[in-house]
Amino acid sequence: MTTGFENTPVLDDSVRVENGVVRILDRRVFPETVSWVTAHDAEQVAAAITAMVTQSSGPLFAAYAGLEITALQVAGQTPQAARERMRAAGRALESARPTNNHPREAVARVLAAVDAVVEGAVDGAAAASQGVGPAGASTASATTAALVEAAVDAARTGAALYRDRSHRLGAETVALLPDGARILTHCWMDTYLIEFVRAAREAGKRFDWVATETRPYLQGARLTAHTLAELGEHVTLITDGMGAAALAPGSSLGRIDALVTAADRVSLDGAVVNKVGTLGLAVAASAFDVPFYALVQAPDRLAPTAADIVVEQRDPTEVLHTLGRRTASERVTDAWYPAFDVTPPRFVTRIVTDRGSFEPQRVADYYGGSDDGSARHGSPE
Amino acid sequence: MTTGFENTPVLDDSVRVENGVVRILDRRVFPETVSWVTAHDAEQVAAAITAMVTQSSGPLFAAYAGLEITALQVAGQTPQAARERMRAAGRALESARPTNNHPREAVARVLAAVDAVVEGAVDGAAAASQGVGPAGASTASATTAALVEAAVDAARTGAALYRDRSHRLGAETVALLPDGARILTHCWMDTYLIEFVRAAREAGKRFDWVATETRPYLQGARLTAHTLAELGEHVTLITDGMGAAALAPGSSLGRIDALVTAADRVSLDGAVVNKVGTLGLAVAASAFDVPFYALVQAPDRLAPTAADIVVEQRDPTEVLHTLGRRTASERVTDAWYPAFDVTPPRFVTRIVTDRGSFEPQRVADYYGGSDDGSARHGSPE
Repeated sequence: MTTGFENTPVLDDSVRVENGVVRILDRRVFPETVSWVTAHDAEQVAAAITAMVTQSSGPLFAAYAGLEITALQVAGQTPQAARERMRAAGRALESARPTNNHPREAVARVLAAVDAVVEGAVDGAAAASQGVGPAGASTASATTAALVEAAVDAARTGAALYRDRSHRLGAETVALLPDGARILTHCWMDTYLIEFVRAAREAGKRFDWVATETRPYLQGARLTAHTLAELGEHVTLITDGMGAAALAPGSSLGRIDALVTAADRVSLDGAVVNKVGTLGLAVAASAFDVPFYALVQAPDRLAPTAADIVVEQRDPTEVLHTLGRRTASERVTDAWYPAFDVTPPRFVTRIVTDRGSFEPQRVADYYGGSDDGSARHGSPE
Repeated sequence: MTTGFENTPVLDDSVRVENGVVRILDRRVFPETVSWVTAHDAEQVAAAITAMVTQSSGPLFAAYAGLEITALQVAGQTPQAARERMRAAGRALESARPTNNHPREAVARVLAAVDAVVEGAVDGAAAASQGVGPAGASTASATTAALVEAAVDAARTGAALYRDRSHRLGAETVALLPDGARILTHCWMDTYLIEFVRAAREAGKRFDWVATETRPYLQGARLTAHTLAELGEHVTLITDGMGAAALAPGSSLGRIDALVTAADRVSLDGAVVNKVGTLGLAVAASAFDVPFYALVQAPDRLAPTAADIVVEQRDPTEVLHTLGRRTASERVTDAWYPAFDVTPPRFVTRIVTDRGSFEPQRVADYYGGSDDGSARHGSPE
């Protein structure tokens, strides 16, 4: 990241650990209102993720932050109790929302570090009792202190690594696009978007943006368009129904050069699971010969096909409202709100990862055909 | 129309002539607020159409009503002045919005009736002056009185005929669908929708509905879903971005059997011009083998191709708002709002008219290959 921005977008730093609590920017009301939700433990962080206080990359940072404060909270406990508490925190964070794997990735990383400390201490104690270990075996309190340090370090390292990989992913995507390209995007790519713009600046390229508003939460109208404007990018907002008209030849908006979205998950057979609405845009892009690039750090090696990915159903009454106000007729009682949809590989041009871009049918090549043991939930480093 | 409804939907009677003025239900705020806009002359009616006080079939009824009150207002004028005033009213109504032909159709019908009276009177006067006509040639005031009567009659007949033809169109569509079919619809089909449901009842069929909310005006969430509920139909609301996910195989919503929308206009080569968002749904329906039926009373014989149809661009700031409230970030300044999109014939299964349904490539057969001289703007009877 050699190029900074004149102004850091607000959403680039929207989950913070301060004085032992987690502060999470409330994206449900941003930017109209800048309000921070405070979570005092991992369960409160999980509840905030479930309630969509933060989404997209936010739950990853929130999960790391939740694990970091949990580690601070277990400082006086026995190593076993501390590990149990870390595991309980992990379970709460993992189950906050079903579709995106980020919190599971964060939990796996931090718990691996915790396990390494506890198991190392057990091994050390066993060796010492047999007279072959170091002279001063770890005391329980020293073990817990090491556990806390390792967990905090793993959480911070994991978050930083996520940013670095997002930057590589952004650079790979920028390489696919000519200078001056007009990009249609959907929903909110979060860290991927910010690093994408950063990578474009480094490459000396400028892009023009078209963003869908992304009902019911309006992430596009509020988060994406706002952040692009903060970054000094030009963005045109459209409603979700206008995507195909924008992609069609001869549109009065002018030519769209590429559809670019994040992917919450990508199965090994190249299906893209992302915010509902992505499928319709991808089908239209395919029909009108506009390439669709889906961005994900890595495909999900635990999901051979899209059928292995749970698609979250959210409360359908959200469809009847806009930013908290009832906007559908009061006589309407039924609605449907799948949070994500599944785009089959035939509608995807390339899947861009931190190891380069792949034809969707070849995305399993990300792992080079061998299992190097470093991956959990499809996001190895 | 042998079958009535237990309750007439409010939107089935939303343009009225009362005491010489036109009262138009304000669809921009219905059903949250039931408010009527009063127009005292044709220009005020035209302004209401431009401002979207009414849309879909509404402008046709409003144009007829505007011409009816104009006819009442010219009662004391010379025939020539009365005709000029009717023509001026017609010009205002025709130019209120560019894409839908309904007001032009209404104006053509009423002005033809006016012309017939004035020209008949001129012929009669000429014949009388040559001693071959009726003994008592029309006086100017009698001519104006006849003009007023003919114009009012043409306006009322035209509106009734529109309903009759919509009913035939509805019955033709019902015939294409099995009992119990689930229908995805977009925006607001207005009289077509109400007559469709009426025809279904007559045929002993029940359908299940899925309606898109249709941003930015939310006609689907407010008008379509509300009216279907008034009619006792079951309707599920979705956002505009969910259409493809609903149409895809294996959707958690269950199988959609057909996409059914109105068409504001259909060109003779089978392209469908309808509310923006129709194209994306049609492309997705085609990709997932769901039939798309587009409803129009008649194709537009003045539009050989879609390129002959002007697609209205509306004020893009409407995209930044929802029901009058700013919902996009204040930092966003640019938006795009094409009111309609154009669906090429390859994505349309059948175009349903009051003379039956056609493959889109054959829709010009509506006119049977001969010009019977009765058609103006593509809507002959």
